[in-house]
Amino acid sequence: MRKALSIVLFYCSFAVTAVFAQTDDSIALRSIYSEILSNGKSYSWLEDLSNNIGGRLSGSPEAAMAVEWTRKKLLEAGADTVYLQEVWVPHWVRGEKEKGKIIDAQGFEQVVPICALGGSVATPKQGMTAQVIEVNDFKQLEQLGEAQVRGKIVFFNHPFDPKYVNTFNAYGEAGTYRWRGPSMAAKYGAIGSIVRSMTLSQDDYPHTGSMHYADTLPKIPCCAISTNGADLLSNIIRANKDTRFFFQMNCQNLDSVLSHNVIGELRGSEKPQEIIVAGGHLDSWDTGDGAHDDGAGIVQSIEIIRTLKALGWKPKRTIRIVAFMNEENGTKGGRKYAEVAAASQEKHIAAIESDAGGFVPFGLGLQMPEEKKKIVRQWEPLFRPYNIWNFDEEHGGADIGHLQNATGTPLIGLVVESQRYFDVHHAATDTFDRINKRELLLGAGTMTSIVYLLSQYGL
Amino acid sequence: MRKALSIVLFYCSFAVTAVFAQTDDSIALRSIYSEILSNGKSYSWLEDLSNNIGGRLSGSPEAAMAVEWTRKKLLEAGADTVYLQEVWVPHWVRGEKEKGKIIDAQGFEQVVPICALGGSVATPKQGMTAQVIEVNDFKQLEQLGEAQVRGKIVFFNHPFDPKYVNTFNAYGEAGTYRWRGPSMAAKYGAIGSIVRSMTLSQDDYPHTGSMHYADTLPKIPCCAISTNGADLLSNIIRANKDTRFFFQMNCQNLDSVLSHNVIGELRGSEKPQEIIVAGGHLDSWDTGDGAHDDGAGIVQSIEIIRTLKALGWKPKRTIRIVAFMNEENGTKGGRKYAEVAAASQEKHIAAIESDAGGFVPFGLGLQMPEEKKKIVRQWEPLFRPYNIWNFDEEHGGADIGHLQNATGTPLIGLVVESQRYFDVHHAATDTFDRINKRELLLGAGTMTSIVYLLSQYGL
Repeated sequence: MRKALSIVLFYCSFAVTAVFAQTDDSIALRSIYSEILSNGKSYSWLEDLSNNIGGRLSGSPEAAMAVEWTRKKLLEAGADTVYLQEVWVPHWVRGEKEKGKIIDAQGFEQVVPICALGGSVATPKQGMTAQVIEVNDFKQLEQLGEAQVRGKIVFFNHPFDPKYVNTFNAYGEAGTYRWRGPSMAAKYGAIGSIVRSMTLSQDDYPHTGSMHYADTLPKIPCCAISTNGADLLSNIIRANKDTRFFFQMNCQNLDSVLSHNVIGELRGSEKPQEIIVAGGHLDSWDTGDGAHDDGAGIVQSIEIIRTLKALGWKPKRTIRIVAFMNEENGTKGGRKYAEVAAASQEKHIAAIESDAGGFVPFGLGLQMPEEKKKIVRQWEPLFRPYNIWNFDEEHGGADIGHLQNATGTPLIGLVVESQRYFDVHHAATDTFDRINKRELLLGAGTMTSIVYLLSQYGL
Repeated sequence: MRKALSIVLFYCSFAVTAVFAQTDDSIALRSIYSEILSNGKSYSWLEDLSNNIGGRLSGSPEAAMAVEWTRKKLLEAGADTVYLQEVWVPHWVRGEKEKGKIIDAQGFEQVVPICALGGSVATPKQGMTAQVIEVNDFKQLEQLGEAQVRGKIVFFNHPFDPKYVNTFNAYGEAGTYRWRGPSMAAKYGAIGSIVRSMTLSQDDYPHTGSMHYADTLPKIPCCAISTNGADLLSNIIRANKDTRFFFQMNCQNLDSVLSHNVIGELRGSEKPQEIIVAGGHLDSWDTGDGAHDDGAGIVQSIEIIRTLKALGWKPKRTIRIVAFMNEENGTKGGRKYAEVAAASQEKHIAAIESDAGGFVPFGLGLQMPEEKKKIVRQWEPLFRPYNIWNFDEEHGGADIGHLQNATGTPLIGLVVESQRYFDVHHAATDTFDRINKRELLLGAGTMTSIVYLLSQYGL
């Protein structure tokens, strides 16, 4: 038995040496993807994070549990240093489940699924009832003017445009009504606002998300309504303008809470002072379990370290995994990381983020000067066997965006298939059962591969 | 009101004329994808086919219902001719739900999920019990030889290799144990065979599929076992070789049944004698509803006609939609279509098939001479905005394969993301709830676009 073990060890060490000597990057990428597709832990980690901790809104007990969970996982994965970076985060709580009802001209009431937008103030304790007026966009709101808006509830019913292939483009267009809608409505005297959920799905789930109150205007309560609910409300209003809406929410903005970014490093063997950041965000909305948004990015990032350790490879440059806190309602974690990075004058050569769901990847977004894009694009042929072909997108990520602003660091965003993302985004449907193991692992393989190449060659 | 209508009609006809005059193919493709993403019927059609007819194995009443359903849908979509083509198909029936049990050395029994492979003979009425031996491949079976195999049940436990990015490669490797395994086992005297389900999922669903009995060997009953069941059986055998397996199946091969291919045409305006075939297969296995395999290909093909009619475009060459019968266990429909095509000397310039599930498309497989591939590849840039980039695969489709054999017709296969296909393939999980509307529609858009280009320019 002991003899057999010696033989195994001999062959193992031989194999590792052989791989070390291999200068062919295509073989290196093959090793990375094969290791992850065969032995990747992302899927079981994400099951644990999603089902045993679940939704982890900034400031919540679950967010604090997720910080500790990530610290442990980074150590298990083999990081040689793991530490926490203090971040003060907003603490908004949803309170009791929200209630929403359409009251038609005859007084008939229909319950519809709503949820408070993140950051919204509460309605009066007993709820709020008022006539509801529907607009498609801000131009229509302006045309109605204060005369027709004052004292009412404004319903922004701007559907996603299905013609976009990339669903993020539809989100970009419609999202402004969630973000700016409440204050725009308040500007004309509205007392509440409702926004159609940000999704192409036709279903009964309201999708939350952050909104922004202008400092100079009254803060009015605002909620999202499911797409089925939005269509029903629209139909009832079309039949008779004298339609009212009732909603009741007791959400609250509490005092800021001390939370953390979680950071784990593999120190570079040749140029440890050159740092490659890879990460996602650890917080999520409270409506679902945050499996796609962005538990996926977290486990994929930890997988980078596990994989390099499993392959026995020592990166030339330092790889730093960052689980950012508070992307959803403040990006305080991204801001804090950037602030510390700028102050310390550390040399960040690139930052990579995965925050578009654990779907099958097909590209790398490059948010960097043209001459650096050319360097990354030289690696395109290495990625083709893994169906990674698109290097034309320009988005990095919300958290690492602050690092670029502060230090000029080149950014890379993992580009994934977007068709199913908004089915679950910020909704109760963002749960682990919506994750496909192989799609998640292919994302981890792509993250690990680009980090590996950057650690070998710099940028 | 009447005046308003005239104005609308004026603008509509103006718009149609403008599009007709438009020589820019990129605008044509934009129109096709936009029409389908906005108004496509594939999703609601597939819901109807999957949930109201369901699984439709060749020779079943459901298959006959699906023929009539498709005939009606082709007419509704606007085909100018719809007709049925007679095909005699095999008629295998599963009978009662199969029973499978592992009996360990101590006599302890554990029920495991199994299902008969398509075409299998039944076990004796009261079931069959024998020692079960596990092999990974045919080489191991050969090494065991008749001495160790005779009178036993052979368990082919060849897992999918997770390292392939394209899961069809793993299917290609493992599938031989389903297709040839039973007769290979019989060659050494086995009395039954079990095959690990053809999937990367770790779950409790057995996956059926066709198998082939060699004429010269005894026909032994054969079933698939779920992957969880396969692992359990393997573990129990490893602990003690004296493990037995019991299974009971009363499936039957009945007399052939007269069935049909369903054909719908849009006749070409300039070269009607030049035909472009586009299709999928109408039959499915009986375990699920056949939503992905291949209801998706059927509705996407009908969508081609609906879309061209909705846009008011008349194809220059004839577009012929074919819903092939009996792909799953005989491809009699594909054979019959090819036989008639060859005999009639019709000029088929290309045939396109969608039969890899209703997942997001990313390429077109080209099974044709190099000089014709070059023509199709000139259109690559037109497809890029829709994330269709891979023109390197060479597979057309099982049904249209016979047409190429008979007439040399160039073949095109819709290439789609394969990560989730074998989660549902031939299993109870192939149901409509696993379909994403937009992924399905993007496939229809891609099919329509390539058919449109072929109808304009030939090949």
